[in-house]
Amino acid sequence: MIIDLRSDTVTRPTPGMKEAMFSAPVGDDVFGEDPTVNALEEKAAQLFGMEAALFCPSGTMTNQIAIRLHTGPQREVICHQYSHIYLYEGGGIMANSLASVKLLTGDLGKITASQVAESINPDDVHAPETTLVSLENTMNKGGGSIYTLDEIKPIHALCKEKGIKLHLDGARLFNALVETGESPADWGAHFDTISICLSKGLGCPIGSVLLGSKADIKRARKVRKVFGGGMRQAGFLAAAGIYALDNQVERLKEDHARARALGEMLNKLPVVSEIFPVATNIVIARLEGITPEEFMKKLAGQNIKSVKFGKDLVRFVTHLDFGDEHLEEFGKRIGEI
Amino acid sequence: MIIDLRSDTVTRPTPGMKEAMFSAPVGDDVFGEDPTVNALEEKAAQLFGMEAALFCPSGTMTNQIAIRLHTGPQREVICHQYSHIYLYEGGGIMANSLASVKLLTGDLGKITASQVAESINPDDVHAPETTLVSLENTMNKGGGSIYTLDEIKPIHALCKEKGIKLHLDGARLFNALVETGESPADWGAHFDTISICLSKGLGCPIGSVLLGSKADIKRARKVRKVFGGGMRQAGFLAAAGIYALDNQVERLKEDHARARALGEMLNKLPVVSEIFPVATNIVIARLEGITPEEFMKKLAGQNIKSVKFGKDLVRFVTHLDFGDEHLEEFGKRIGEI
Amino acid sequence: MIIDLRSDTVTRPTPGMKEAMFSAPVGDDVFGEDPTVNALEEKAAQLFGMEAALFCPSGTMTNQIAIRLHTGPQREVICHQYSHIYLYEGGGIMANSLASVKLLTGDLGKITASQVAESINPDDVHAPETTLVSLENTMNKGGGSIYTLDEIKPIHALCKEKGIKLHLDGARLFNALVETGESPADWGAHFDTISICLSKGLGCPIGSVLLGSKADIKRARKVRKVFGGGMRQAGFLAAAGIYALDNQVERLKEDHARARALGEMLNKLPVVSEIFPVATNIVIARLEGITPEEFMKKLAGQNIKSVKFGKDLVRFVTHLDFGDEHLEEFGKRIGEI
Amino acid sequence: MIIDLRSDTVTRPTPGMKEAMFSAPVGDDVFGEDPTVNALEEKAAQLFGMEAALFCPSGTMTNQIAIRLHTGPQREVICHQYSHIYLYEGGGIMANSLASVKLLTGDLGKITASQVAESINPDDVHAPETTLVSLENTMNKGGGSIYTLDEIKPIHALCKEKGIKLHLDGARLFNALVETGESPADWGAHFDTISICLSKGLGCPIGSVLLGSKADIKRARKVRKVFGGGMRQAGFLAAAGIYALDNQVERLKEDHARARALGEMLNKLPVVSEIFPVATNIVIARLEGITPEEFMKKLAGQNIKSVKFGKDLVRFVTHLDFGDEHLEEFGKRIGEI
Repeated sequence: MIIDLRSDTVTRPTPGMKEAMFSAPVGDDVFGEDPTVNALEEKAAQLFGMEAALFCPSGTMTNQIAIRLHTGPQREVICHQYSHIYLYEGGGIMANSLASVKLLTGDLGKITASQVAESINPDDVHAPETTLVSLENTMNKGGGSIYTLDEIKPIHALCKEKGIKLHLDGARLFNALVETGESPADWGAHFDTISICLSKGLGCPIGSVLLGSKADIKRARKVRKVFGGGMRQAGFLAAAGIYALDNQVERLKEDHARARALGEMLNKLPVVSEIFPVATNIVIARLEGITPEEFMKKLAGQNIKSVKFGKDLVRFVTHLDFGDEHLEEFGKRIGEI
Repeated sequence: MIIDLRSDTVTRPTPGMKEAMFSAPVGDDVFGEDPTVNALEEKAAQLFGMEAALFCPSGTMTNQIAIRLHTGPQREVICHQYSHIYLYEGGGIMANSLASVKLLTGDLGKITASQVAESINPDDVHAPETTLVSLENTMNKGGGSIYTLDEIKPIHALCKEKGIKLHLDGARLFNALVETGESPADWGAHFDTISICLSKGLGCPIGSVLLGSKADIKRARKVRKVFGGGMRQAGFLAAAGIYALDNQVERLKEDHARARALGEMLNKLPVVSEIFPVATNIVIARLEGITPEEFMKKLAGQNIKSVKFGKDLVRFVTHLDFGDEHLEEFGKRIGEI
Repeated sequence: MIIDLRSDTVTRPTPGMKEAMFSAPVGDDVFGEDPTVNALEEKAAQLFGMEAALFCPSGTMTNQIAIRLHTGPQREVICHQYSHIYLYEGGGIMANSLASVKLLTGDLGKITASQVAESINPDDVHAPETTLVSLENTMNKGGGSIYTLDEIKPIHALCKEKGIKLHLDGARLFNALVETGESPADWGAHFDTISICLSKGLGCPIGSVLLGSKADIKRARKVRKVFGGGMRQAGFLAAAGIYALDNQVERLKEDHARARALGEMLNKLPVVSEIFPVATNIVIARLEGITPEEFMKKLAGQNIKSVKFGKDLVRFVTHLDFGDEHLEEFGKRIGEI
Repeated sequence: MIIDLRSDTVTRPTPGMKEAMFSAPVGDDVFGEDPTVNALEEKAAQLFGMEAALFCPSGTMTNQIAIRLHTGPQREVICHQYSHIYLYEGGGIMANSLASVKLLTGDLGKITASQVAESINPDDVHAPETTLVSLENTMNKGGGSIYTLDEIKPIHALCKEKGIKLHLDGARLFNALVETGESPADWGAHFDTISICLSKGLGCPIGSVLLGSKADIKRARKVRKVFGGGMRQAGFLAAAGIYALDNQVERLKEDHARARALGEMLNKLPVVSEIFPVATNIVIARLEGITPEEFMKKLAGQNIKSVKFGKDLVRFVTHLDFGDEHLEEFGKRIGEI
């Protein structure tokens, strides 16, 4: 048995999800005629209390479309230096939108309204115009850390006052919401655009949804076309999304419980000097006396997969295909190291 | 019964294809671990005798990636003024690659080596550098017209001599090949990159494949990531592609036969002044005494769908879901107009 | 004596202009403190009845800034296929602004409102959004042809109705105005932005001015900075512009008279099959029985410089440093050929 | 008497320089025929032992051209977070070249080879490719701090090994060289491209020179055209550059001596908590108990101009138009505060 903890993207659809996919009515979504895609977009928009939604092949695409909507050449986005949009999207902020970045620091990958306030550029020919703040929740590089709405509100208020747009990379937003008890609609009310990912904890094979105003989503559809994200009978994929929203949100709590247990197991290892606070389904271990490469090799010897996450860091992510039996087995195997 | 002749993209998977899709083994393709995606990419590369292939969510993406590989700011692509890459990809040549276009004219959407030779820019600060020629086969706006290899060879030779790349938008290349009897490998030998579409005549719900050298496909994978085209368990979609290549290529001839018949039916209408030569599965009718909008409205009244294709042109495309019974019914209904 | 008719850019400042340059008060224009630059910008804005102006190092920069103001990725500019902005600015429309082009044909390089009306893209994901029409007056590739205001008005009205911006590449606008008697202010009233060139017929060594609304010029200043066009003590150059506007506009008529005479001389040559109508200071000769290269070599043998302007075309431009004595000498020398 | 210490760009040409400017022979540089521009480019290339040079209207343009030569979409430049190219060029890295930035920290604005080594991205679809390291000498935001060649060599060696280009923003390079005694040719041997500014300490009104290989400068000429930096009779400006290189380099030492004296004067003020080490002609004062705005207002009341340079920082720059009499006067006036 391979224990794959590299990412929550590695899951395969459950039988129920597959059944939903297989039996979904489909049409040509480029003509706007795929009923299942339309149903997913409506469902997601309603859930977040936002006007409209757009189904895309990846979370990178939904983020990159949002950045294109809100920035452009000689414009700047403020984000944490460890943001997915800056670190893991291939330089897309610049390559797709020609926008500059102002990179902030902050504990567990989070930033504050006062930091943002200090980082807004003056109206001067030497500086790009600040037009977007982008947050990430949960924050991957922060160990799955959670922003609460109370932290968001002052940032939102500041952005509104300054005429700056606010985007949320909500790839793992549902992981945050099942912990805080906040609702999607609470979040929808505080952002111009939100990207949610279906293929991470929610367990879908493919897809992400961008949420926003009608006008923004209309423009987003045009950007999606130019990026090559317009798909034909995409209802097979959208059906998985509908199924996940109906059936696989609450169970994220189980991933979190297993992540906490897994963190405790790892913390007992002498080579682990620190475990980042486990807030959701991500466990980041800091190593001492061993490199990530060496440690991961030992784990691989036990058929455990993980990813390097920095100079002395290794990341483990729990997910739909990691059950109690895998957790128990994980405990046994790391005892062997 | 609705007779939908707007495009060959409107088809739904056959039962055999659907069975193949949902029984396919899948994995996380961002980690390169989806066995079905890998199998499709290998199969396509082998078929064309090219080194490598990349599965993408759309033909627009495979074209746009190829353009990004071969051009850039202050570089220029030569293509026909009616090319899909210029007309129907949202301005992506410029928006994604910052490249200029030299637009050529030519009968049935085709261009010649001597036209290309005259259009290559001199080495001068005032002009962008010509780095790419892009052809389309079959040519959509030319009424599904066919380039033969004999027409390609001198263009290829010229490009090679001048150090210019040659890309083929082969969205409907198989339609050409079943007519000419030429092989995919014949074509693979004459282009730097080829984009083939699975979701048109081949009947897949989603997807396109980009073919090229190993080095180009490696770079293409990076461009795909930045466009947001990296998908996770994409094997469900790739399985349809494998099935289509194995089972649904030869039948394109049936679409062509029905297109010819359909063209003859249309040609008898007094409002039709001309039918473009029907070479494959596309029928373009030129109207007189009636606007496309009015004509399409009459057709819609008979539950026949078509698309406007110019000031006095209407396009009909035959496909997998348009059988003999639909053809016969089409004949009856247009008799009513 | 070399007779240089390659362009009206080859002139050197007159003694009066040089005196004006040398004695101009200057300051740091990046701080907005060069009094002579400020005076030129105010003078030009007032002359055209437009709100504001910006001094730049070249006409390519003023055009490219205007295009950046009015377009962007997935947006399109409509212009004549022979426009300077498309043909001679290195692909800058795409490289600087990521914008697409719709290229129109038309006699003597001119286009009409009805052509523009047919070329505006529909609101559809497949097409870039039409946001700019760009005209050129006089039209270089049209043999210095002139647009009259009566031709402009319907284009302006159409653009206004459709919410499309209208830019004028007025590199040689003053050549048109001295012929038609129309005023700069007449023209200023019909365009969103106008670029005028100081270093062509007006005889300045360097510089161009962009005219527009206060808001547009404020943004233009930011674009100029990013292109690297912000200069320090630019008043030396601006002084030449002020001098030219005060002293060297009316004399353009002399260039036109000499151009007409020169055209007649050329027309008598057996190898010249046609002279484009000579409207201003540009003479385009169509050759037969000789290539431009051969013809230009013969001229060079007589110390006459010209430029190739197409497959069988050669261009001659009259200017400040081409007086009656040069014209007479030109006549003698071509008699020798 | 106004004492303007905002920047060394505020200077006006000396009588000798002005005489050189207005007696210079000029021609049309777009045709490559301005003898004075050609002479400056040759002189600068020879001085640095580099193959070729290009005269441009600003240092922002020479930097931005270099960045365009060495980067592009999905590529990344490594530089200090306080670099001029990132902070003060309007977001041009992204807007002109679509490149990403990796921003390093380091004392006095300087970075080391080991930092660079850790910042080179892996070959992975998620990350842009590192293709450029850019250094700045002297470092403006570091208080005019100096890199010595010994610090450069390991960075150069690393870049060479990794196939990464190395650019120098040498806006104030001559200020460093007169202090270290290193020669321009020593520096030319360690960089792919160098940008030097003529309009700062060297006292020219306008202009910057980009140095590099013949191939790079040929491409640079094309980029300059597209940015709109191609000028006509630019010899008037180039003549100032030649004059400055011949006559105004060594005197930079005087600016440095005055800067040191000025720093000591400022350091005695109770509101000044720290003066950055004064290495060349820049003095940065850290304030306490007063905001930069308040402090600058007090200075302005004494007709002293300075610029805010951070939350609690004010910058003073000495230059050609700031002599001993100004220094003495400065000392008196700040005694009044």
